[in-house]
Amino acid sequence: MPQLRLALAQVDTHVGNLDANADLVVAQCRVAAEQGVQLIVFPEMTLTGYPIEDLAMRASVIEASRTCAERLAARLADEGLGELVAVVGFLDRAPGVEDGFGIPKNAPQNAVAVMHGGRIVARQAKIHLWNYGVGDEMRNFVPGDTINVVQVHGVDVALAICEDLWRDGPSAAAKAADAALLVVPNGSPYEANKDDVRLDLCATRAVAGECALAYVNLVGGQDELVFDGDSLVVDANGALQARSQQFVEELLVVDLDLPAATPTMPGTGERFGGLAIKRTVISTEPVPSYEPRTTTPGDRLDDLEEIYTALVTGLRDYVRKNGFSSVLMGLSGGIDSTLTAAIAVDALGADKVFGVSNPSEWSTEHSRTDAAELARRTGLTLDTVAIAGIKDAYDDAIKVDGVAEENLQARIRAVIWMALSNQHGHLVLACGNKSELATGYSTIYGDAVGGYAPIKDVPKTLVWELSRWRNAAAERRGETPPIPENAINKPPSAELRPGQLDTDSLPPYEELDAVLDAYVERDLGSAAVIAEGFDAELVERIVTLVDRAEYKRRQYPPGPKISKRNFGRDRRVPMTNAWREHL
Amino acid sequence: MPQLRLALAQVDTHVGNLDANADLVVAQCRVAAEQGVQLIVFPEMTLTGYPIEDLAMRASVIEASRTCAERLAARLADEGLGELVAVVGFLDRAPGVEDGFGIPKNAPQNAVAVMHGGRIVARQAKIHLWNYGVGDEMRNFVPGDTINVVQVHGVDVALAICEDLWRDGPSAAAKAADAALLVVPNGSPYEANKDDVRLDLCATRAVAGECALAYVNLVGGQDELVFDGDSLVVDANGALQARSQQFVEELLVVDLDLPAATPTMPGTGERFGGLAIKRTVISTEPVPSYEPRTTTPGDRLDDLEEIYTALVTGLRDYVRKNGFSSVLMGLSGGIDSTLTAAIAVDALGADKVFGVSNPSEWSTEHSRTDAAELARRTGLTLDTVAIAGIKDAYDDAIKVDGVAEENLQARIRAVIWMALSNQHGHLVLACGNKSELATGYSTIYGDAVGGYAPIKDVPKTLVWELSRWRNAAAERRGETPPIPENAINKPPSAELRPGQLDTDSLPPYEELDAVLDAYVERDLGSAAVIAEGFDAELVERIVTLVDRAEYKRRQYPPGPKISKRNFGRDRRVPMTNAWREHL
Repeated sequence: MPQLRLALAQVDTHVGNLDANADLVVAQCRVAAEQGVQLIVFPEMTLTGYPIEDLAMRASVIEASRTCAERLAARLADEGLGELVAVVGFLDRAPGVEDGFGIPKNAPQNAVAVMHGGRIVARQAKIHLWNYGVGDEMRNFVPGDTINVVQVHGVDVALAICEDLWRDGPSAAAKAADAALLVVPNGSPYEANKDDVRLDLCATRAVAGECALAYVNLVGGQDELVFDGDSLVVDANGALQARSQQFVEELLVVDLDLPAATPTMPGTGERFGGLAIKRTVISTEPVPSYEPRTTTPGDRLDDLEEIYTALVTGLRDYVRKNGFSSVLMGLSGGIDSTLTAAIAVDALGADKVFGVSNPSEWSTEHSRTDAAELARRTGLTLDTVAIAGIKDAYDDAIKVDGVAEENLQARIRAVIWMALSNQHGHLVLACGNKSELATGYSTIYGDAVGGYAPIKDVPKTLVWELSRWRNAAAERRGETPPIPENAINKPPSAELRPGQLDTDSLPPYEELDAVLDAYVERDLGSAAVIAEGFDAELVERIVTLVDRAEYKRRQYPPGPKISKRNFGRDRRVPMTNAWREHL
Repeated sequence: MPQLRLALAQVDTHVGNLDANADLVVAQCRVAAEQGVQLIVFPEMTLTGYPIEDLAMRASVIEASRTCAERLAARLADEGLGELVAVVGFLDRAPGVEDGFGIPKNAPQNAVAVMHGGRIVARQAKIHLWNYGVGDEMRNFVPGDTINVVQVHGVDVALAICEDLWRDGPSAAAKAADAALLVVPNGSPYEANKDDVRLDLCATRAVAGECALAYVNLVGGQDELVFDGDSLVVDANGALQARSQQFVEELLVVDLDLPAATPTMPGTGERFGGLAIKRTVISTEPVPSYEPRTTTPGDRLDDLEEIYTALVTGLRDYVRKNGFSSVLMGLSGGIDSTLTAAIAVDALGADKVFGVSNPSEWSTEHSRTDAAELARRTGLTLDTVAIAGIKDAYDDAIKVDGVAEENLQARIRAVIWMALSNQHGHLVLACGNKSELATGYSTIYGDAVGGYAPIKDVPKTLVWELSRWRNAAAERRGETPPIPENAINKPPSAELRPGQLDTDSLPPYEELDAVLDAYVERDLGSAAVIAEGFDAELVERIVTLVDRAEYKRRQYPPGPKISKRNFGRDRRVPMTNAWREHL
């Protein structure tokens, strides 16, 4: 059987930076060529970055992307890389489609270009558009209807793009076209445990398509999304051949023995299940036989490490890609701000992390000592700004009590953080967790201020688990655990009145998070949640809290998505509503 | 020709309040029946309210809606209204569709039920799903493929739903089926000047379909949308027969002479352009001849009145539907907060509007006197809370200067408003205009705080126009103009440092708004904006401001949409990006 040396370029593209992304492609192609690679595959929409949302429909953006792709193909040849076949994602325009109702303006397509010999020798648009969760591709793209099969050194290689892999059609067409390999560029965001689903899916499609399958995913953070990479290759039996590390850039080179293309295959223009086959022959001669490399899939991250790394990656890239270099957050000594600080130190280094402790008359002694201990352990910079004088000045100006007075304290702190941020250029981090966000247990314009919210998709019980995991990981490496044990073990409190505990206002977090998992993450109606065995009154209480807090979530800073429903664009509900008994 | 008395029920439904919406249907049907109406048509998704977004995919919500529709049909008959044919929008489930990738969970459909004699005699799902602007219906609904033709007193009536009207297919099918009347329930949000487009469209479709057409639209505010009603009837020549007032609930009763159904028409199951025809005969006997009423379309609102009324309607319904009764805002004496206050007084009454003046060391004398004059003219309650003491307390705690110090003052004010809101239960209004929002000329967590932002979609130049219009309208009615002339005529300033003017930081508003119209509202690339004759440096400056302010807009309160792109869900762009020269 012919051999093929394949490279999966798991890269971190930068949305909108066409030139830098093109440079990245050239650099990766050079490394691949030096390693004798014949075919290199990049992630979805490599040149534009992904996702670009409504910018896809702007004529200037489409033209910039198309021009960039054509120039890149020429440049690869100019730089002596023209023999390498490169599959590069870009934004294309559907030919011959006119504007009209129901058609995205300027007919943009989520496409890949096959580059060889200085030219784009084949183009293919995504057939199945991602239109659930945070995906709005039916709004932005015209779907494709063609599967390309390109022959590379005597091997027929079919193409599919991301969502295409999740449907039956494209792999069936690859089978019908007798392709030996299906390559799939992806922009598939991280969700906890998605890697397990992904490998199973690749194996299923490879078996169905009777072909090997190479899955190439983006890596790095973009707005609320984190891409975990996890690029992989399975053979035609679905057996894993090679797999990239998660959350790091990597050029994964894999040697494959693949069935030779035969001349009796269906030709260009034939259709399978509504999809046209388009054949392009790049080279028919197999490469001279060589000793294949063996690749050993590396160790996988365990579940908590994976989530923690996603949070670190999301924060690091958000800070970097938005032109910041340092962060500032309020440090209350509580577990949420403590874990957030640990993530920030891991993402940026301790010298880029600034904490502010804002003790009030209701702050406990341990809130100060725990924050100081965190600073000592991690090396972050801690400042203390007491709020009593400011609180007195507000009290002289206005008379408020109860919850209004509690919120006032939280907002006084926020104004201090924002002022320091404006003065020194730090990005402010909001430290709220998902359980708080769900129930509205936070002060809008108080603890909820910030440019980024690293743990907004992390339920409180998982906050504790991640904190324990992070400390244990440090111990395994012989390092100082960053998180003071007292921050993990003490009962949570907002410390906005004497003796206050979270459980004064909320159910115990174990119960709360279990109900939230059913009501939010699994989107069950309250009757279905109760049918799972939860107390009806508890469910009603939580559902009411969740629905009434929608206005707060709308104004909450962005943060890394690690679940199906992070209260971002993946869960769209009316704010003004009266559902109550129907939810 | 047979006569038909038709009622267009232009109502304000409440999202999620199935029982109240059903009661509304019964009440309108009773009034219609008393007036001898044979056919009554309600807006899109009458029973659930519209839009319900992802709640459409929840099994409990679908079942609640289906049950509500069935019970309503029975109840209409029980209450002696069974003879009236009622077309009522609801959320249905597509029969026989199983869950799978690319199919909205639980197969929801945006549907109408035709109710008669205690039963639902026909159901139809929206064929063309609204999936641009703020519409995400391909995410939420399974499209229909059937046009119903129901015979009512010998007249064939075809159905279509909202977006269906904007495409060719349904009216072509109505023509092919030889329907005499096409009735179209809508949930079509207000945009400035959309009413002109709407009448033209109805006329075009009526002529193409060779049938009269009744367009029934929702009225009232829901989250960021305002529905303006503007329900209307055109005859088969496209001539306007009757038209509802905008922004008010109305039962518009119209007498029509329509061609009789003939027995040679295509039957159930025949298809036209991919659409199946389904026929239901309710009654074949024409009503006895009677003297038709004449309806005179009322005066139309002029362009500024229409926009102003949309803003009043949006605010009034947001306050009411979210369970508030009063509002609070900072009153700086500037035109933005002054116009916002005037809108609030018109929406809620002066006794529900609370203004707070927060003079600082940099506040001018006129900022106080203009705010006081506004209060005197409108009757709103004005309190004054000076911020100097609080500012001093912050200065004792932290050292900041420049923009950080300017923002600090804005945030001190915001904390006061929020504290008063928490204490007294007022909804805080943010007073920023669209030009500010576009350029980021505001302080996040400062003047940008609030639960609702009535003029966030109003460019600054339009703020002045609306203010002048409002005063002139008062003068025409012999009332006191609410807006002090000095607030309109003085040069705009944030008053955060001595002698500060908006034009220190921004281009003159006339130029700014013209470029924003091209770059944001018309979504042109910067090269195309420059090609319209704008200065290249000015365009680059504004484009950069707009793109860098995305993070502020994400955390801005919701407000009524009056344009194509209000910086809400109608314009989705990546926050982290590096497009610059491609935009």
